[in-house]
Amino acid sequence: MTDEALLEGLLEGRVASLARAISLVENARPGFEALLTAIHPRLGQARRIGVTGPPGAGKSTLTMRLVTQWRAEGLRVAVVAVDPTSPFTGGALLGDRIRMEDVALDPGVYIRSMATRGSLGGLATSTREVCDILDAAGFERIVVETVGVGQSELDVAGMTDTTLLTLVPESGDGIQALKSGVMEVADLFVVNKADRPGAPKMRREVELALDLRLGKTHRNLPAHHGALQRGAPVAVTPEDGPVAWRPPVLLAIAAKGEGIDEIIAALDAHWEAGSASGALVARRHERLGRSTRAVVSRAVNRWLFDGGPASALIDDRLAAVVAGTASPYDVAAEVVAILKEEVQV
Amino acid sequence: MTDEALLEGLLEGRVASLARAISLVENARPGFEALLTAIHPRLGQARRIGVTGPPGAGKSTLTMRLVTQWRAEGLRVAVVAVDPTSPFTGGALLGDRIRMEDVALDPGVYIRSMATRGSLGGLATSTREVCDILDAAGFERIVVETVGVGQSELDVAGMTDTTLLTLVPESGDGIQALKSGVMEVADLFVVNKADRPGAPKMRREVELALDLRLGKTHRNLPAHHGALQRGAPVAVTPEDGPVAWRPPVLLAIAAKGEGIDEIIAALDAHWEAGSASGALVARRHERLGRSTRAVVSRAVNRWLFDGGPASALIDDRLAAVVAGTASPYDVAAEVVAILKEEVQV
Repeated sequence: MTDEALLEGLLEGRVASLARAISLVENARPGFEALLTAIHPRLGQARRIGVTGPPGAGKSTLTMRLVTQWRAEGLRVAVVAVDPTSPFTGGALLGDRIRMEDVALDPGVYIRSMATRGSLGGLATSTREVCDILDAAGFERIVVETVGVGQSELDVAGMTDTTLLTLVPESGDGIQALKSGVMEVADLFVVNKADRPGAPKMRREVELALDLRLGKTHRNLPAHHGALQRGAPVAVTPEDGPVAWRPPVLLAIAAKGEGIDEIIAALDAHWEAGSASGALVARRHERLGRSTRAVVSRAVNRWLFDGGPASALIDDRLAAVVAGTASPYDVAAEVVAILKEEVQV
Repeated sequence: MTDEALLEGLLEGRVASLARAISLVENARPGFEALLTAIHPRLGQARRIGVTGPPGAGKSTLTMRLVTQWRAEGLRVAVVAVDPTSPFTGGALLGDRIRMEDVALDPGVYIRSMATRGSLGGLATSTREVCDILDAAGFERIVVETVGVGQSELDVAGMTDTTLLTLVPESGDGIQALKSGVMEVADLFVVNKADRPGAPKMRREVELALDLRLGKTHRNLPAHHGALQRGAPVAVTPEDGPVAWRPPVLLAIAAKGEGIDEIIAALDAHWEAGSASGALVARRHERLGRSTRAVVSRAVNRWLFDGGPASALIDDRLAAVVAGTASPYDVAAEVVAILKEEVQV
């Protein structure tokens, strides 16, 4: 059953309701699924933007600039900072967080940190659910900011409409340092701290890597371009598919607010191109398929280990597993055999 | 069915069989569960040591030193480097890896990197399974090295007998930088790069934090101690439980090989104290319970989405989810209701 007052308060954008709703969802407390079901038909109003990149790339500063700009346009903005790097907090991060809090005094801005621990069923699912709550609460831009560690930016790309990858000139061995899979998820590259040496080189490398992936013919640079304008967003049409998007590679100095207009324009262009081509709808459908599977998996696991057949079986077989006469795989096979035999759909 | 030749080769410690077995398990290819079941009764010969800590703490250098020392004692050693920080590779890490490869030329040493991606059912489970293979292959020391990002070192602590937490004097705000949960899993603290300023202060802070957690009465420093000897391992007995272990806090300069003997001695002392008190057996049982649940969960998920009732249901309901007339939570509730109704154990 849905808590009607909570739902109403949330949809009206009341701060207290929002905080309660997020805490309900984050902790998977009774009623969280009913609330998420109730808001499900209303989702899709917000634009969800992932901001990722290596530590020290200036993601928080860039995010703060975007937030400020969107606020100037009168948009309500939420930031979900996913922090899987946890237990060793760096000073720089703390510094960024504090600067972020200037923005947080604005009632049109909501900032939330997601910790790794305590999130049942995975951080990706919890984060997506918190974004859903923010979407329902009427935020028009939702930034999911994450530090680029392993799986996390792929997860973020899976839950946002646009993924912005922030790089810095000194990012180690340049574009070579990006393992496969990361370049592919970026809809927009920002070479931040562009006043440092190596920024144009870094951009050239990214463009080259895009050439290799998308084909050089799809490169479409304006004839005249300044340092910050080059690499403006262009829609490209590869021979083998529908209208595609060649990720622009922009230079910025987020700390000084330089290049932010261009980033906002590129984000808008990506949204418009994706809306026109149907790519955003396709992405949203994929996302719903993925999140449905994740939610089903979480619910089944909860049932399985909490009163379901596995909890009793595991308790029963653990002594044999410890003694070495049964393996965890034997127990798993037994559980699956029971499910297979009994469940006929 | 187990591949008998593979099993035999693995148990004899043949390198080709080991590589095949690890690849089988890492990719969850047909037969991997049978192989893991076959080796299950033989596990527990190796000592599993987790080496964790923030980036730049010198974990790889320290690991290499430990490996060298153990090799000098005639022990076979495996290193599993878990690298969830992936897609942005730093230069320092690459440097360490290259130095690590000097050691890798020794046939008594096996080094393996685990990537985040492609591991079905979670990195923690795959890593534990690779450790099981190495255990069966006769390695006497298995080091699981991971960079301290979020959940990973807690996972590592869950799969090893001893967890070594590496810190450096300049670790930001010192011990304050450790979020809760990390201190608790460490069986041994090493303040590395101890020739830098701040090392004794860092050690004092860790000792103080341990005092707060374990009670000052359990502090038992030798009357005379040099810089590297202070904080030698001592078994402590808190009033509220059986014989416990107060984690020693050692200073080291891994790059110069200083403090390594003391670390080896502390690891041995932890093993001996844990064996005597039953703590290691208890930890191993917990580990088996956890890994059994993880393996069951992975098997059930595979069945669920691959031919099981959820795959058909999701395909069937996805259109409604997309249209907003059903939510992912409705689909999950439906799947669980079917399972609940049909399965009687």
